[in-house]
Amino acid sequence: MSDKLIIFDTTLRDGEQSPGASMTRDEKLRIARQLERLRVDVIEAGFAASSNGDFEAVKTIADHIKDSTVCSLARANDRDISRAAEALAGANRARIHTFIATSPLHMEKKLRMSPDQVFEQAKLAVRFARNLCGDIEFSPEDGYRSEPDFLCRVLEAVIAEGATTINIPDTVGYAIPELYGEFIRNLRERVPNSDKAIWSVHCHNDLGMAVANSLAGVKIGGARQIECTINGLGERAGNCALEEVVMAIRTRRDHFGLEVGIDTTQIMPASRMVSQTTGFVVQPNKAVVGANAFAHASGIHQDGVLKARDTYEIMRAEDVGWAANKIVLGKLSGRNAFKQRLQELGIELESEGEINAAFTRFKDLADRKSEIFDEDIIALVSDESVTAVKEHFRLISLAQRSETGERPQASVTLAIGDAEHSVHSEGNGPVDASLRAIESVVQSGAEMLLYSVNAITSGSTESQGEVTVRLQHGGRVVNGVGADPDIVVASAKAYLSALNKLHSNTERVAAQG
Amino acid sequence: MSDKLIIFDTTLRDGEQSPGASMTRDEKLRIARQLERLRVDVIEAGFAASSNGDFEAVKTIADHIKDSTVCSLARANDRDISRAAEALAGANRARIHTFIATSPLHMEKKLRMSPDQVFEQAKLAVRFARNLCGDIEFSPEDGYRSEPDFLCRVLEAVIAEGATTINIPDTVGYAIPELYGEFIRNLRERVPNSDKAIWSVHCHNDLGMAVANSLAGVKIGGARQIECTINGLGERAGNCALEEVVMAIRTRRDHFGLEVGIDTTQIMPASRMVSQTTGFVVQPNKAVVGANAFAHASGIHQDGVLKARDTYEIMRAEDVGWAANKIVLGKLSGRNAFKQRLQELGIELESEGEINAAFTRFKDLADRKSEIFDEDIIALVSDESVTAVKEHFRLISLAQRSETGERPQASVTLAIGDAEHSVHSEGNGPVDASLRAIESVVQSGAEMLLYSVNAITSGSTESQGEVTVRLQHGGRVVNGVGADPDIVVASAKAYLSALNKLHSNTERVAAQG
Repeated sequence: MSDKLIIFDTTLRDGEQSPGASMTRDEKLRIARQLERLRVDVIEAGFAASSNGDFEAVKTIADHIKDSTVCSLARANDRDISRAAEALAGANRARIHTFIATSPLHMEKKLRMSPDQVFEQAKLAVRFARNLCGDIEFSPEDGYRSEPDFLCRVLEAVIAEGATTINIPDTVGYAIPELYGEFIRNLRERVPNSDKAIWSVHCHNDLGMAVANSLAGVKIGGARQIECTINGLGERAGNCALEEVVMAIRTRRDHFGLEVGIDTTQIMPASRMVSQTTGFVVQPNKAVVGANAFAHASGIHQDGVLKARDTYEIMRAEDVGWAANKIVLGKLSGRNAFKQRLQELGIELESEGEINAAFTRFKDLADRKSEIFDEDIIALVSDESVTAVKEHFRLISLAQRSETGERPQASVTLAIGDAEHSVHSEGNGPVDASLRAIESVVQSGAEMLLYSVNAITSGSTESQGEVTVRLQHGGRVVNGVGADPDIVVASAKAYLSALNKLHSNTERVAAQG
Repeated sequence: MSDKLIIFDTTLRDGEQSPGASMTRDEKLRIARQLERLRVDVIEAGFAASSNGDFEAVKTIADHIKDSTVCSLARANDRDISRAAEALAGANRARIHTFIATSPLHMEKKLRMSPDQVFEQAKLAVRFARNLCGDIEFSPEDGYRSEPDFLCRVLEAVIAEGATTINIPDTVGYAIPELYGEFIRNLRERVPNSDKAIWSVHCHNDLGMAVANSLAGVKIGGARQIECTINGLGERAGNCALEEVVMAIRTRRDHFGLEVGIDTTQIMPASRMVSQTTGFVVQPNKAVVGANAFAHASGIHQDGVLKARDTYEIMRAEDVGWAANKIVLGKLSGRNAFKQRLQELGIELESEGEINAAFTRFKDLADRKSEIFDEDIIALVSDESVTAVKEHFRLISLAQRSETGERPQASVTLAIGDAEHSVHSEGNGPVDASLRAIESVVQSGAEMLLYSVNAITSGSTESQGEVTVRLQHGGRVVNGVGADPDIVVASAKAYLSALNKLHSNTERVAAQG
């Protein structure tokens, strides 16, 4: 068996399915470029047939990414598979990933199909896909809760039809390492043509065991592909975290004896980018990428670390890209320096107009903040007003005040389409007053599910505050993100960003877990 | 072997060792009471010999907790063990937990002792402890990286001296489930008197496998105690998360066949309390207690869930205490209703003066916020000015304003000891201006490591903002937490709370991982 382990990243597909994590095409492309720098083997870019927006995102990524294989999800039907193939047409290396549920519960309750119908549809779908693309992955959804005899029959058939990767999802996060490993080993032993495909694991973290289950699938089961996401992003408790599973394979090479092609020094930049883009915070006590992951508090530990680093550290922070924040630019930096830094960060703005808009914002920020970090630049270009997306709602100006014993108030001027509106409101705090002012004009009726702020660059409140606002309206959930050294302004921007997403997003069909 | 699994919570000891997670005695008592409601079997309340503050915290918890065993950590020496016994004197059920490192690396580099010296010291420590307390736990620190022959010799000796629980820590989070399980099974098979003690697991999450490792220690190794923390709080990537390991045992009872005494409906209240108290956020994609843990985004999933709940859900949100926020009190609620709600929340203020101070704050909040939730009440009483701790720095009043194109400014009046100071400052934003104003008077020189805000009750920015500020000064890291509907005021309160902690905290010796 090969000693190369394939890392399949699904941040942009399964990760993005998480309520509130939806991303624009440009955001997805930026993350895809970072995943390419990270050297993931396969990037699952989306689910092309689910919406026009997803189709465009997959197509854009397929057109721009050269080193990694680009993959689109597709249900097991001709239309979905054709759309996936169409979106992937420009890719250097393309993969179609088709799926259908095989567990008794899912077949009966969700699909309302008999096992024989599912068997036929799986076979026909892979046959159809194989004529469009040489690299076909098949997933029996809820595979781990499927009946093994039936599953073997389906898997043998799809391999015979040309599926090159067989992925066994633990869709609901129900598995236990040794059981999941044995389950996959058993399938590989029983399916007669199992050696014609690479086996893959896809684990969810509902019981906190996605990483251990994935590794058992590899070590015990013989899988050679792991599906994972940055920061473990994903529905419910999320997916297997790329950074954890990769560092486990590296740190315990003595046990696993496998090679991964990942450039681990790109892990922290990827983690920050995904967290900033989605507004999903990473908790301090998160393995590898949490703020405390490499910190030691206690006197004994500090003493121990001084005496010999490996008394308490099994990994080195610098190996996963933790480095001191570097001041990259300041108010004297010119347009060329700014443009070059954008390139180094892998940010490619599409037009000179966009670069100019971003540079104007950069100068504006540099007037107020002496040290500009990479995170600031990423936040700057994440701001929708510098990207191609035409904003329906735009902040023009804001004034607010609060004083002990008086009711906080805010005056906001905003543009809606081409019309300008000024409005004044009171609130429980200055943020509340500002958002009430906006809402009194926009009247979105959206419900706020979450409000959070993080300083973008550690150091001080001199840095920019990054605000995430999560809104729900008409069954849709969106996150808006806004950054500004003034937390009230950042909040207004985040709120407007979320309103713009609600305004522009269209419905789409979503996918398997 | 017993089918009862002992849940040993170390949130207040190993969790609190996490940089920034230090808690006051009153905060620890509040959490200990919640752990008792959760029905954990053993509460590790602290490390009595490490500081006078820790001694007082252990003593207070020992004096107040009746149902759970209360435990104190102690190094393997007579002084530490005596202090632990003294702090635990008032406990209904007490345990002394003594430890010494046994790995070659730790013995040589940290302890600078020979294996024979460590062997002798472990034996003498347990002998000494056994004369003071009938319930003795022994941990060979960095046990998983220890040499098995030596470890067996030490463990046999300490069991012979009367250790009743043997805990095998994976101090650095290096283990893999099957290897850790086999390691413990091997020890239990080789130590001749192993059946005289209950075996325990203590896993760290550096590679994302603390839960799986703990469960393998139980299932493969035969351990019957798991050491864990709420939200997986703990040094670096944290400890095994109580909520995950308990729900895995419950959800997969078919596999584990073990009973735990935990009242799982108390999990969410415990998670919120620990997060609010320490300022350590829980990420949305955190298993069991994350905001998204029970949410479904995609159309297919929602459809699936509607058709049959268990297509995508293996646990029920209500079983772990997720319930809709209930409006518990409003501005018309009287002092008795408030006092009763405090009791229901398990909050016991020490004097009528404290209850009056809290009630005054409650009325003040109710004037500004129509719906008061349990989280608001917890935040209210977490505020240091209603507790017995005398604040050195206190906010008296604050006024701030910002306007597009102008520099934000703030005027702050604060009390330092008995003197009042008013000061004005500008800043990059209103929060920055306010904190600069405070710093210009206090001149702490502290470095800010983290600044974050979360709305306490989801719903809207009408709710209170809860600000966490993490400061570092002179090698110490403290978190300050402040809550207010006005985010700028909350920030000033959080900053002053952190300054008060820096002002009052004394150094202490800290403990094993």
